[in-house]
Amino acid sequence: MNTFGNIYRLTNFGESHGAAIGGVIDGAPAGYNINVEQVQAWLNRRRPGHSPLTSARNEADSVQFLSGIFEDKTLGTPIGFIIENTDARSSDYGNVRDTYRPNHADYTYEAKYGIRDYRGGGRASARETAVRVVGGAIAAQILNTHGITIHAHAVRIGKATTPEEMEAEIMQAKADHDTVGGIIECRISGVPVGIGEPIFGKLQAMLASAMMSINAAKGFEYGSGFESATRRGSEIIDTPFFDERSRRIRTRTNYSGGIQGGISTGEDIYFNVAFKPIATLPRPVDTIDKDGNATILEVHGRHDPCVVPRAIVVVEAMAAMTILDAFLMNRATKLR
Amino acid sequence: MNTFGNIYRLTNFGESHGAAIGGVIDGAPAGYNINVEQVQAWLNRRRPGHSPLTSARNEADSVQFLSGIFEDKTLGTPIGFIIENTDARSSDYGNVRDTYRPNHADYTYEAKYGIRDYRGGGRASARETAVRVVGGAIAAQILNTHGITIHAHAVRIGKATTPEEMEAEIMQAKADHDTVGGIIECRISGVPVGIGEPIFGKLQAMLASAMMSINAAKGFEYGSGFESATRRGSEIIDTPFFDERSRRIRTRTNYSGGIQGGISTGEDIYFNVAFKPIATLPRPVDTIDKDGNATILEVHGRHDPCVVPRAIVVVEAMAAMTILDAFLMNRATKLR
Amino acid sequence: MNTFGNIYRLTNFGESHGAAIGGVIDGAPAGYNINVEQVQAWLNRRRPGHSPLTSARNEADSVQFLSGIFEDKTLGTPIGFIIENTDARSSDYGNVRDTYRPNHADYTYEAKYGIRDYRGGGRASARETAVRVVGGAIAAQILNTHGITIHAHAVRIGKATTPEEMEAEIMQAKADHDTVGGIIECRISGVPVGIGEPIFGKLQAMLASAMMSINAAKGFEYGSGFESATRRGSEIIDTPFFDERSRRIRTRTNYSGGIQGGISTGEDIYFNVAFKPIATLPRPVDTIDKDGNATILEVHGRHDPCVVPRAIVVVEAMAAMTILDAFLMNRATKLR
Amino acid sequence: MNTFGNIYRLTNFGESHGAAIGGVIDGAPAGYNINVEQVQAWLNRRRPGHSPLTSARNEADSVQFLSGIFEDKTLGTPIGFIIENTDARSSDYGNVRDTYRPNHADYTYEAKYGIRDYRGGGRASARETAVRVVGGAIAAQILNTHGITIHAHAVRIGKATTPEEMEAEIMQAKADHDTVGGIIECRISGVPVGIGEPIFGKLQAMLASAMMSINAAKGFEYGSGFESATRRGSEIIDTPFFDERSRRIRTRTNYSGGIQGGISTGEDIYFNVAFKPIATLPRPVDTIDKDGNATILEVHGRHDPCVVPRAIVVVEAMAAMTILDAFLMNRATKLR
Repeated sequence: MNTFGNIYRLTNFGESHGAAIGGVIDGAPAGYNINVEQVQAWLNRRRPGHSPLTSARNEADSVQFLSGIFEDKTLGTPIGFIIENTDARSSDYGNVRDTYRPNHADYTYEAKYGIRDYRGGGRASARETAVRVVGGAIAAQILNTHGITIHAHAVRIGKATTPEEMEAEIMQAKADHDTVGGIIECRISGVPVGIGEPIFGKLQAMLASAMMSINAAKGFEYGSGFESATRRGSEIIDTPFFDERSRRIRTRTNYSGGIQGGISTGEDIYFNVAFKPIATLPRPVDTIDKDGNATILEVHGRHDPCVVPRAIVVVEAMAAMTILDAFLMNRATKLR
Repeated sequence: MNTFGNIYRLTNFGESHGAAIGGVIDGAPAGYNINVEQVQAWLNRRRPGHSPLTSARNEADSVQFLSGIFEDKTLGTPIGFIIENTDARSSDYGNVRDTYRPNHADYTYEAKYGIRDYRGGGRASARETAVRVVGGAIAAQILNTHGITIHAHAVRIGKATTPEEMEAEIMQAKADHDTVGGIIECRISGVPVGIGEPIFGKLQAMLASAMMSINAAKGFEYGSGFESATRRGSEIIDTPFFDERSRRIRTRTNYSGGIQGGISTGEDIYFNVAFKPIATLPRPVDTIDKDGNATILEVHGRHDPCVVPRAIVVVEAMAAMTILDAFLMNRATKLR
Repeated sequence: MNTFGNIYRLTNFGESHGAAIGGVIDGAPAGYNINVEQVQAWLNRRRPGHSPLTSARNEADSVQFLSGIFEDKTLGTPIGFIIENTDARSSDYGNVRDTYRPNHADYTYEAKYGIRDYRGGGRASARETAVRVVGGAIAAQILNTHGITIHAHAVRIGKATTPEEMEAEIMQAKADHDTVGGIIECRISGVPVGIGEPIFGKLQAMLASAMMSINAAKGFEYGSGFESATRRGSEIIDTPFFDERSRRIRTRTNYSGGIQGGISTGEDIYFNVAFKPIATLPRPVDTIDKDGNATILEVHGRHDPCVVPRAIVVVEAMAAMTILDAFLMNRATKLR
Repeated sequence: MNTFGNIYRLTNFGESHGAAIGGVIDGAPAGYNINVEQVQAWLNRRRPGHSPLTSARNEADSVQFLSGIFEDKTLGTPIGFIIENTDARSSDYGNVRDTYRPNHADYTYEAKYGIRDYRGGGRASARETAVRVVGGAIAAQILNTHGITIHAHAVRIGKATTPEEMEAEIMQAKADHDTVGGIIECRISGVPVGIGEPIFGKLQAMLASAMMSINAAKGFEYGSGFESATRRGSEIIDTPFFDERSRRIRTRTNYSGGIQGGISTGEDIYFNVAFKPIATLPRPVDTIDKDGNATILEVHGRHDPCVVPRAIVVVEAMAAMTILDAFLMNRATKLR
């Protein structure tokens, strides 16, 4: 279950404080130009320490491609890559060896596997999302070739919904030795009609799975979303018409979020992902140790007050992989 | 993509107005008692016409098991079953042959496949959810053996949030020749700690995919959900403690929704699914035909004013299959 | 593991003496004409009792399609079908309830599942191959549209290698109250260059898996096969040349069996499958019962003296599904 | 299709002359001790240049583990690893850039992908089998814990069938500027009864797929194999008996090769794999270039006269992964 996708498949490996994290992209079609600098640029957007809003940890997060790209083009063979863990100060995390952090996966991993790498959260650390960003950056470059673009941004941080207020909300949470949640909206343009598979492979189901697999994600909605529950059917009809300009069928509104019956309509696909406040608080918290004894935990590592700024590129990456995968699956759909 | 699950797998087939719908359950472990009457009882909960809140169509929806159950026990071999389409009045739907219904999959299916069964929505009809109910009912019986239970119910219909008001909201929508949306909450009790797979197979990702694959679902959230986005981290800490009574680690609150790092904590798993108002309105609506010409569509079939009452058992079914699948996957997790 | 294939997928269900056997074909591309009579004709080739060389059991083996085909064309949706078990004389098999037949799966199923349907071999019966024939017949019709044809025939029965001698060998085995093995050769023509996936999805690996999954198959070889082990490299070079007539690259010989590096070369693909003598002997045999006590088993059912005549169409069916699956997978391979 | 297995899954990446080859093992159960030196020892058995029978290329083939193993134990998380390509003399292979080598995948890769890494065979090189050896070495260590052992050895080289003669046959082929084929037998002991899945997941089908995916493999047979085709049923009955010493059901002979109905019987599993002579001949050969013009190819690289000595450990590795995968799949089979 460390592999995402059906045809375009990303296999993801690595612990936060092991030698390296990395991945294998299988199913990237052959013959596409890959700009490695752009992949690195996506990684840099996720990097901690690139803005005052994020933690001070300064990781290079430099991706090294090992296979699958030859003379700047995809070979159609698997693209292996690694990102070394260069700035792992293991001693910062030593005090969590025998302690279960609240709202973390320490206890669940240990119960599931009978063993865990306690250093920096190990496999449960959000560090693995760097691997997703590489997989998504490659997918996005391939999609761009076909006129498909993806853009995500924050629409809420705590109570705030404007850029300035959202930034202030994060700074205030940091000042309060606290963390804060938020919502990211993502919009995908240029998807042709017909992408997505009915029944269990509906585009919204694949997107929901992709988004809810991101650390700290708590909710997903697309199109009219949760708001639909409060509405009448007559209020959210997307009336179709034949658009003379684009010479294709379109709808006057897009409550459907660009998807009908699990299949893209050709309108923009858009959805929201809710993120909880980061569970690691920069203050002492009550918890228990492995033997069940109450204790107080103080974490001295470098941690973000809000996951949202760094999660934006992760949302885009997961969206890119999902759409490319559906796009490739659709190639086997009909007689041609 | 008509198969759901990894080990406990349901393959789903059938058009709304074909000879039959049906499915194959592969991976049901051997030796479990199956009560076929209880499966039928779950199907009856989904049946249209079983309450004034649902449509008048009177389908028997009688499941016939063809294999995999012998002397009332699972054999470990695939369980094939069919549900005949007995009451399909095809003539009711003839006028949609050349017309695209707004907010339906008519246009997207035709664009994707170049062909569609226009009778009653064909494959895109919610009729296929009956197959899911059978798969879920079997899964639920196996889970019950292990002390795991699942219960869903409506928590919102339009503006209403109490049972009486919700019922009134549906009746009013019907009286207004309209439809209305709603929210279903589902709660799963008795799941042991350790179920669910990290990274892409997180329990919340699998549940989100399962729920968002249901017709008319527009949003999914678990635990503190979208509300988390507005909160501080210090407000939603689930402080762990050792519970002397149950002799295991528990948390004092459950904002986590019973899942940490994608793995069950042993606390109740709970989540919400938002459903849009049904797209088929019992009134004339503007639309276009296959040639792009504007037209008015009047549907004379029997349709529900709200999907929620019938979707409750579908939510339970998808939850049961998801949890059983994760439960079985976990058996190969560690040394024993 | 009752599903075969990656994109064109057959899910197979049913016990020999249950209500029905059947299957679901998922991933058949939309828009292909299906001739149901031809599917039935393939099934008839597999039917017991259609020649003096096979058993007297007279099963209708009539396939009923339930979904996925509309106005004689594939919809792109799953094709569900059943074959009723009409002529199952259960009483013939009663004496095997508590006895393990030698060289049968009675003991292994019971050890694996803790339960088995002992009637006529249950799930382990070769009766399930009828389901494969339906899946293969549909695949073959789609392949024919693309100019790909498949033909299998017997090349050895016991010591015999000519048609007349092979028939005599079977009649003699029957007269001797014995059974006899054989070899089927299969040849696939018209496969374009480029079909098949490298590494683990090599065409020969997929074909080997398909063939070795047929009951009684004991060996697989393709191209120069086992004979290659005895040869020098200089003896089996397939020298390439540019064929002016077909305007493509061909090879002067075809020791490669139409596959290089797991990918089709455009030359004919050919392979052999070895089948053991049927394990059910028409004479008393020594065995043991469930309690481990020695006993003598006499089977009074109708059984074939040789599996080969009926297995020919099963080999063709598995080959057709394998090639179509690889053909569809290849559609997502490169930029276009 | 660069992933092997269902639960224990190896994803394999890398071109012969890229930066590195490597893999990700997902699904290794947690808590098993891993001896990294033993893994390296398996790799060394595959290494070229370790005997006069193999080529002179001296690659370190040193495996570096990047994740999934912590304090010498499997974590249950994916095990990422790489093997750097240190001794790749690219210039040796330059002359194959525009030439298609006979009986190689040069033409088929180019036709399939429209692009290929021509250096040393690129992805089609047998170099990727080093990745399989790592996956298999880990699997074998886990299996050993459960008392399961695997041993392969050569049983034929060309016409020779004794160790001394087989060695002479290889030396003679080398002296003749030629190559020679052979057969490897593999035996697996200690597999408990009940491993393997019916129908399409039969143990012999999984093993056949695994073995036929190895470069140069041309045939697979298990138990009585191709020989069965020439036999009567009465000649190859494996009569069962209750073995008082082991307190379990066994058979007096083992023509079945340790498998009945696709499921292990508890007897030894054994099978043969036929390998063709290596296609790269140390002499000039006729071929064509990319434009279809006839040319003569001379390869000056270091190549083996026979694949068999180095393939033995690859056969063991693929067998180990197959059996462990089936072993883990079986854990979800029945009520417990």
